[in-house]
Amino acid sequence: MFKLNALVSIALLGLGTAARAEDGYDLWMRYRPLASPARAVAADHATAIVAPGISPTILAAVAELQRGFAGMAGETPPRARLPSAGAILIATAQQAPALGLGQPDLADLGGEGFWLHATHVHGKPVTAILARADIGLLYGVFRLLELQEQGVPLDGIDLRSAPKLQLRVLDHWDNLDRTVERGYAGQSIWDWWTLPDWKAPRYTDYARANASIGINGAVLNNVNAGPESLTAPYIAKAAALADVFRPYGIKVYLSARFSAPIELGGLKTADPLDPAVKAWWATKADEIYRAIPDFGGFLVKANSEGQPGPQDYHRTHADGANVLADAVGRHGGVVIYRAFVYSETNAEDRAKQAYADFKPLDGKFADNVIVQVKNGAIDFQPREPFHPLFGAMPKTPLMMEFQITKEYLGQATHLAYLGPLFAETLDSDTFAHGKGSTVARVLEGKVDPYRLTGMTGVANIGVDRDWTGSPFNQANWYAFGRFAWDPEGSARQYAEEWARMTFTPDPRFVTPAVDVMMGSREAVVDYMTPLGLAHQMATGSHYGPGPWVSDLARPEWNPVYYARADANGIGFDRTATGSDAIAQYAPELARRLADPATTPERELLWFHHVSWDRPMASGRPLWDELVAHYDHGVAAVAGMRRSWAALAPYVDAERFEKTSTYLAIQQREAQWWRDASIAWFQSLSHRPLPAGSPAPAHALGWYRALDFPYAPGH
Amino acid sequence: MFKLNALVSIALLGLGTAARAEDGYDLWMRYRPLASPARAVAADHATAIVAPGISPTILAAVAELQRGFAGMAGETPPRARLPSAGAILIATAQQAPALGLGQPDLADLGGEGFWLHATHVHGKPVTAILARADIGLLYGVFRLLELQEQGVPLDGIDLRSAPKLQLRVLDHWDNLDRTVERGYAGQSIWDWWTLPDWKAPRYTDYARANASIGINGAVLNNVNAGPESLTAPYIAKAAALADVFRPYGIKVYLSARFSAPIELGGLKTADPLDPAVKAWWATKADEIYRAIPDFGGFLVKANSEGQPGPQDYHRTHADGANVLADAVGRHGGVVIYRAFVYSETNAEDRAKQAYADFKPLDGKFADNVIVQVKNGAIDFQPREPFHPLFGAMPKTPLMMEFQITKEYLGQATHLAYLGPLFAETLDSDTFAHGKGSTVARVLEGKVDPYRLTGMTGVANIGVDRDWTGSPFNQANWYAFGRFAWDPEGSARQYAEEWARMTFTPDPRFVTPAVDVMMGSREAVVDYMTPLGLAHQMATGSHYGPGPWVSDLARPEWNPVYYARADANGIGFDRTATGSDAIAQYAPELARRLADPATTPERELLWFHHVSWDRPMASGRPLWDELVAHYDHGVAAVAGMRRSWAALAPYVDAERFEKTSTYLAIQQREAQWWRDASIAWFQSLSHRPLPAGSPAPAHALGWYRALDFPYAPGH
Repeated sequence: MFKLNALVSIALLGLGTAARAEDGYDLWMRYRPLASPARAVAADHATAIVAPGISPTILAAVAELQRGFAGMAGETPPRARLPSAGAILIATAQQAPALGLGQPDLADLGGEGFWLHATHVHGKPVTAILARADIGLLYGVFRLLELQEQGVPLDGIDLRSAPKLQLRVLDHWDNLDRTVERGYAGQSIWDWWTLPDWKAPRYTDYARANASIGINGAVLNNVNAGPESLTAPYIAKAAALADVFRPYGIKVYLSARFSAPIELGGLKTADPLDPAVKAWWATKADEIYRAIPDFGGFLVKANSEGQPGPQDYHRTHADGANVLADAVGRHGGVVIYRAFVYSETNAEDRAKQAYADFKPLDGKFADNVIVQVKNGAIDFQPREPFHPLFGAMPKTPLMMEFQITKEYLGQATHLAYLGPLFAETLDSDTFAHGKGSTVARVLEGKVDPYRLTGMTGVANIGVDRDWTGSPFNQANWYAFGRFAWDPEGSARQYAEEWARMTFTPDPRFVTPAVDVMMGSREAVVDYMTPLGLAHQMATGSHYGPGPWVSDLARPEWNPVYYARADANGIGFDRTATGSDAIAQYAPELARRLADPATTPERELLWFHHVSWDRPMASGRPLWDELVAHYDHGVAAVAGMRRSWAALAPYVDAERFEKTSTYLAIQQREAQWWRDASIAWFQSLSHRPLPAGSPAPAHALGWYRALDFPYAPGH
Repeated sequence: MFKLNALVSIALLGLGTAARAEDGYDLWMRYRPLASPARAVAADHATAIVAPGISPTILAAVAELQRGFAGMAGETPPRARLPSAGAILIATAQQAPALGLGQPDLADLGGEGFWLHATHVHGKPVTAILARADIGLLYGVFRLLELQEQGVPLDGIDLRSAPKLQLRVLDHWDNLDRTVERGYAGQSIWDWWTLPDWKAPRYTDYARANASIGINGAVLNNVNAGPESLTAPYIAKAAALADVFRPYGIKVYLSARFSAPIELGGLKTADPLDPAVKAWWATKADEIYRAIPDFGGFLVKANSEGQPGPQDYHRTHADGANVLADAVGRHGGVVIYRAFVYSETNAEDRAKQAYADFKPLDGKFADNVIVQVKNGAIDFQPREPFHPLFGAMPKTPLMMEFQITKEYLGQATHLAYLGPLFAETLDSDTFAHGKGSTVARVLEGKVDPYRLTGMTGVANIGVDRDWTGSPFNQANWYAFGRFAWDPEGSARQYAEEWARMTFTPDPRFVTPAVDVMMGSREAVVDYMTPLGLAHQMATGSHYGPGPWVSDLARPEWNPVYYARADANGIGFDRTATGSDAIAQYAPELARRLADPATTPERELLWFHHVSWDRPMASGRPLWDELVAHYDHGVAAVAGMRRSWAALAPYVDAERFEKTSTYLAIQQREAQWWRDASIAWFQSLSHRPLPAGSPAPAHALGWYRALDFPYAPGH
């Protein structure tokens, strides 16, 4: 038997893997054959699976284990009733004693945590996966498989893990015509047209991937929502997806259009305090819960960028949120209410408006409302200081909104690992209750006690075969899931895990690849928006540089609004002499930010308007420093290309070539960004380029004339 | 060695195939392991590959053979210098003697034909693939692999084949934003945004699939063309695709917007007789040929459905075609000029307008122009009589335009095999030069001598993993390629070939599956547009029934224009008492069509307006016969479902489930079509339904109120 299996393994290693292209579909769950001797060791640790449970979640967990070990160890572990040597035991606290595992103490694990634990049963070595509920067991199975894929030995394993946030949600900006707003990976994965009839296998793989990193919610449709998502046919379609996702612990949410009572209900108003409006939402929620008993709830974008909302009726956002919260609350649902608001009639600094709107409402939201706040006060820039609402809403649960799709960081083709961006925000200290009041701890409810906690990522997923448009974009999905599980985690660690599983655990690959990843976001900052600049992207598509744009209807849509460059200097004065946005931060932090000298240089131009000649830490004047950052960004991408080129021996042809090609595009576009930005700012600063820094390849007019009508995602 | 290979084969058959989902990506080129003993026989016929050529086309041919036999026989045949027993020899006429194959007579094969031939070299049995040019060898390789996949023994093979048409072209209605007009299989496969940098492996697989069925051209962009496709960046993108396609014998064509000299060239006119316009096109063609030396040429849709054209300048279509023909002709290119024209200012029967415009131009086109005529005079209906231009243009080459994407035949989800539709048109007798002047022979230049011949299919290809949106839609791509190679071929044979390769050669599968396919198009005709009805589809999307629509701006866009139903009867009088469209056919045919009694019932209402009470061949009055056809259509789909359900043992889970699900959708929609159509026509005929025919499920108003704003492809 062993001999035959060995031959089978050889065959799979040879023809089998050759025939199976690495097109990225399998994400970090590739389960490719392990190298010897790890393969035999893995097989010895998965001789059988003992799982007393029979729920769809347990069946999914067992199937995943079988799939994983069939791939990695070459043998499919059979399901068994009783523990044997080398078995994997999957048991809740209630089931554990009957398997000889005693009565484990799992009190610290919550409803979703797990304990991976090498132990002995009747003298036989086993690997126990224990949890208080089936979903924890599934999470434990995925973590065990991930460790195996990373080459971590299971001998002596003892790992307890529980999520620090309750709602770990992907937000899909997907429209019903299958376009995706700011989507750079093809059409929506939801084929609304053939739902609810055809449940594509991909929906299951989507659920597997999310469960593998602990994501437990999906908002199916765009925050810029039409009313149709709330009609019966589309509720049925959402219900079909919910049925697929349910075993994997993923709840479905819908973006709700605030004016749906008018558009669908035929009412004259959507005033949240109107009894007919309240009744309409309650009836609609009842209808949804009949189809989707575990429906997660509504996501709402209201009174923002043209969307209807409670302010249309002179009501507050709390009034708006609470009527929806009443409707879903009776069924256990929540309302995720976005704080991303700014008004075309408000001349105030855009960065201040969300705080101004929401801070006075602290404590006025219903218990099942959570307010979703973008990481920064503008809009998913390559770098933003953390949003001043974090730490400022002690009586209102806040949920982080990150953007995984890279609207402002090179979109599909640039390699930009967002782990450092996530970590930078999460590790930021709000000083809300003194030092150590980090954004991560605010989210966890450790700074102020929150009854709801959560993190949302705007998904970068589409129907592209590799899901996210490029191999390295997958890392941002992965890292988001990990940070949602543990906001205090390490961007480098998540990158390492991902790289080991997605490519190979070989350190000759992992170390340089992770170095490329870890430096990549700073490279983007440098070639797009160094030193605290923001929103310098071209209009609409946000593709490429447009720092000169000044003719848009709303002032805060213009890049010149943000850079405020002139002959004397550059930057947005947000101190008391300017918009005083810094006053929205805790006093200890606000004091530091009031002075350019105590403001981190990387955020200097976000908070201060300073002279081109201002001396920087390097000793260079600001103008020279700015140019040096642009140059560094371009050089960094060149370095990334060199590093990647050396990794060819460790990567399959398709993913190697695609990454190489995209890095070449990135280098070309980094140069474009650098040249166009310098051409523009030099036309204002009238200063010479520092020695060694070449002039832009073209005159400013050439860059201004570029036009890309078919840029994706817009 | 044998023993090891046998075990390897077992492994591949077991774990290997289980791990490799049948998601349809491999089309009919699956190359799965053959059953024993065919596997061993196949291996014996591919012990080595001897191919003296070194062109990219020959390298592609060798790689394909290796891939095919590695999959089917379990062993990769090595490339060898000299023939050995069981070798496959790939040689042009010039190379044949040196391999011991003598001097084959290949005069009848043209530049693209091939001869597959079991023979002996120095007493050793070999399989020879012979051709006059490398592309013929590649076609021969694909045919040999296809025979092998179908389980046809290669012993004693002797097959000569050459295409009967020169231009065998797929026409992609793909826009630069990746939407596809009338596309039901996801976005455009051309990722214009990452071209020319990233040449996705899928482009090569597209070329392989096309070459495997002899397609040798691809029009990359929509006939409703913007000017951007002719700009330098998009020419570079097209050139990148041409580079991928070139080894596979596929030329790239572009749809040209007639007014491009104005939009891109800044000219005041696009008058084809204006010297500046001529010069602009010549310069543009030179630019394209510098990037794509074997550029196929331009496809033009002019003065049709709002597109600009020569009539804007009071010039003829010949004037318009010839200026473009001059531009590309110097480089060996052609102009494919569409005859699909009808005017909003022409009150004449739409079915007559193309003939009226083009017939007077016969003989006035340049030598490198071919006029592309849709199969029928309206627009790709489930059934149309052949277009009267066929046989009527003795001095102008005509090219057939079929639509592979099923705009009017149930779009993505209905199973409708188009082979019988293609064959019905191709086998139609034009009587142009007496009996036997079939459309197929017109196209081949055998009725009138044509210097150019060809067939176009409007592609049904998108980025969906299975290319065409459903497994059975792939058959229409396949059959189109086969009919383009041999317009006198058999729809059933092509279905059988496809079914054997795409699923299994097992006759327990093939016979019933092909029966389903062969009856499927007639089922669609019956439940949508029986007895010669046409264009009863809903407005815009063409999804679902809309026979009542009468309020569109142009009369010929309204379904009521085509059915002309009233209290007395139904049908479009195209005899001398009506539009006299029949006068556009040859006299012998026109005489038959002048009388309802000698008109085929299946085309009755296309040519005649007749009483609801007219007795039909069945003895039933027309009204009852019409209802019987609708009922038959619904019943036929129910039968297709039953047949398919019984085929579960022979089909992998994913493709079986998807087909089952789509057949369930089709049955529901067939019922909808039947009910809505009967509800509408009964409101006019005021006649009772025949006994046994149930009333529609809803009142007419219910059907009229349905709305599908997100129907795909529009």
